Amino acid sequence: MSPPTSSSPALSAAASSSSSSPSSSSRSSEIRRDPVFDRWVIFSPARARRPSDFKSHSPASNPNPNPNPNPSKPSCPFCIGREGECAPEIFRLPPPPSGVADAAAAWKIRVIENLYPALHRDLEPPSSVPELGPCAIPGFGFHDVVIETPYHSVNLWNLPAEEIGEVLLAYKERIHQLDRHGSIKYVQVFKNHGASAGASMAHSHSQIVGLPVVPPSVSARLNCTKEFFDRTGKCSLCDIRSKEILIDETSHFFSIVPFAASYPFEIWIVPREHISYFHELDHKKAVDLGGLLKLMLQKLSKQLNDPPFNFIIHSAPFQLPQSCLPYTHWFLQIVPQLNTPAGFEIGSECFINPVFPEDAAKVLREVNC
Amino acid sequence: MSPPTSSSPALSAAASSSSSSPSSSSRSSEIRRDPVFDRWVIFSPARARRPSDFKSHSPASNPNPNPNPNPSKPSCPFCIGREGECAPEIFRLPPPPSGVADAAAAWKIRVIENLYPALHRDLEPPSSVPELGPCAIPGFGFHDVVIETPYHSVNLWNLPAEEIGEVLLAYKERIHQLDRHGSIKYVQVFKNHGASAGASMAHSHSQIVGLPVVPPSVSARLNCTKEFFDRTGKCSLCDIRSKEILIDETSHFFSIVPFAASYPFEIWIVPREHISYFHELDHKKAVDLGGLLKLMLQKLSKQLNDPPFNFIIHSAPFQLPQSCLPYTHWFLQIVPQLNTPAGFEIGSECFINPVFPEDAAKVLREVNC
Repeated sequence: MSPPTSSSPALSAAASSSSSSPSSSSRSSEIRRDPVFDRWVIFSPARARRPSDFKSHSPASNPNPNPNPNPSKPSCPFCIGREGECAPEIFRLPPPPSGVADAAAAWKIRVIENLYPALHRDLEPPSSVPELGPCAIPGFGFHDVVIETPYHSVNLWNLPAEEIGEVLLAYKERIHQLDRHGSIKYVQVFKNHGASAGASMAHSHSQIVGLPVVPPSVSARLNCTKEFFDRTGKCSLCDIRSKEILIDETSHFFSIVPFAASYPFEIWIVPREHISYFHELDHKKAVDLGGLLKLMLQKLSKQLNDPPFNFIIHSAPFQLPQSCLPYTHWFLQIVPQLNTPAGFEIGSECFINPVFPEDAAKVLREVNC
Repeated sequence: MSPPTSSSPALSAAASSSSSSPSSSSRSSEIRRDPVFDRWVIFSPARARRPSDFKSHSPASNPNPNPNPNPSKPSCPFCIGREGECAPEIFRLPPPPSGVADAAAAWKIRVIENLYPALHRDLEPPSSVPELGPCAIPGFGFHDVVIETPYHSVNLWNLPAEEIGEVLLAYKERIHQLDRHGSIKYVQVFKNHGASAGASMAHSHSQIVGLPVVPPSVSARLNCTKEFFDRTGKCSLCDIRSKEILIDETSHFFSIVPFAASYPFEIWIVPREHISYFHELDHKKAVDLGGLLKLMLQKLSKQLNDPPFNFIIHSAPFQLPQSCLPYTHWFLQIVPQLNTPAGFEIGSECFINPVFPEDAAKVLREVNC
């Protein structure tokens, strides 16, 4: 009922299968490291049918691609009044007034557990992780959902800036809770909008995953900005704004199409001030960011015909040594899903982008919303 | 006419646009490095419409997803008899007998230029690349297409092992030519099958991209296997075969579902012998590999209902120092496209896989073809 991050929509169960293979769902979740690509992969059998039942929904020779998740369903488990059909609630905003039972209180935002979590909060956190080679640790971690509005047909960018700010502050609150847990090393906040961007629920929501390891891609990002800092004394992100790629700016943030955008019309929203952690956001900056995020999502929707998109908050790992802070600067990345990453991108991790960032920025500057 | 690697199918041109923005296609191709993620991105305006004309084909709220490329078209520019409609030919196999004009000779495989190349062979190769920070170099490189059969409705796995071996030897021949050019640092061979795996032409083909830089992901892979080698004295890939994840083996190759497969039913085909470069393949091994590749693609097609897929050959960069060879072992990766990489995967590069490799391997071992 709660949204998987991405997997279900493109997979279908065959009507029947005679295979006698063991069901993946009899296994417990694991996080494994690949010894060649140095990647962590989460194996989450609860999110699957039997392995023998996997079929492509859209065979290459006769495609019948993914339907969108419940776009016009008048009510869904994320809608107001159907809270009992969801996985347990973690908190709601505004907080219920004293004397009112939590479940009965009106809400604007609910943070709940994911009913089909990729990671499991009740497993034992790994005590140590081998430094090298193939390894597997228990699939411990947190996977939560932020329901951004009680109403099914409201998109995040339809909310006023102030209310988008409240969603951002809900992320902040949950990240603080995960930080206090002590076993979580990195938190990934993200939003999938549209089936082909991996959303399995149409009702506006985002997700928060707390991981017991720092993903190698995050370490690689920090190594990259460290190297630049060591040689130039500058933070890569403090230095990134230029007139040609700028879309807009506010008191505390600016938005750009990055100089080497991997995706057409990719947008980064960056705090002007050098800050390492997203969850240092205060109320005033949250409303400011809410306004800029609203505008960017409106512009993408208008210019690109309501494209599927993802946004991702790139923050610093927890417990980062003080010495790393000067080259660690959080930002929010918005990725419209217009292309399919194919063999070249999977193999080389080089992307091919047909639109120069300077041109995309100019187009986005000129869209009236 | 020749296939883009992935971009076109999901993008559509708006009927009209009043924007006065400059057209990306008036710019020359560039390769840019992102200073935060340490990624190279190819900006290839020839592959796009005007930047103001980008629209999503499948808006999130009312999806109408990508049609498959010409699946039932009885004839296409890659078909026999329509060679004149393609970009220039580089070579064909079998080589035309002496006395027969090249264009008139019968062929089984044609290697041609991509009509919409991501990189341009007529630009000046970069003389040097700054080591650090944002940078842009000319979009020099090669982007070729291998037409694997003259016949439109034949899939690669329908060919006999011997003929698949000839396709592999065509890759080898072209890689040798690119090596001799001197300005190419890395070659990526890949195949996209099906629209949602990025294929814009249904006629069976693969692609070869010659890059003037080594992608950071390739350097990262070598660093990872180097670290393992330095500590253990072993090559990660020589050490990778285990009974539980093995699908099949031949005289010279074995196929596995890797221990930490990022994708459900991902397959690696690995040479038993420690060899760094794919293009050291001889005729005997090519036929052996052709047979195993055929079987793996047949199994995927049967088990997963003709899924879209990519395959990628991971070989070593050209001119690698002798000292790196002990930890560099080429392999072929097959990725069925059943999932959409979404916000979590884009942000963390951690994938969520609902199927344990041991279970996927067992299912694939048991599929009869």
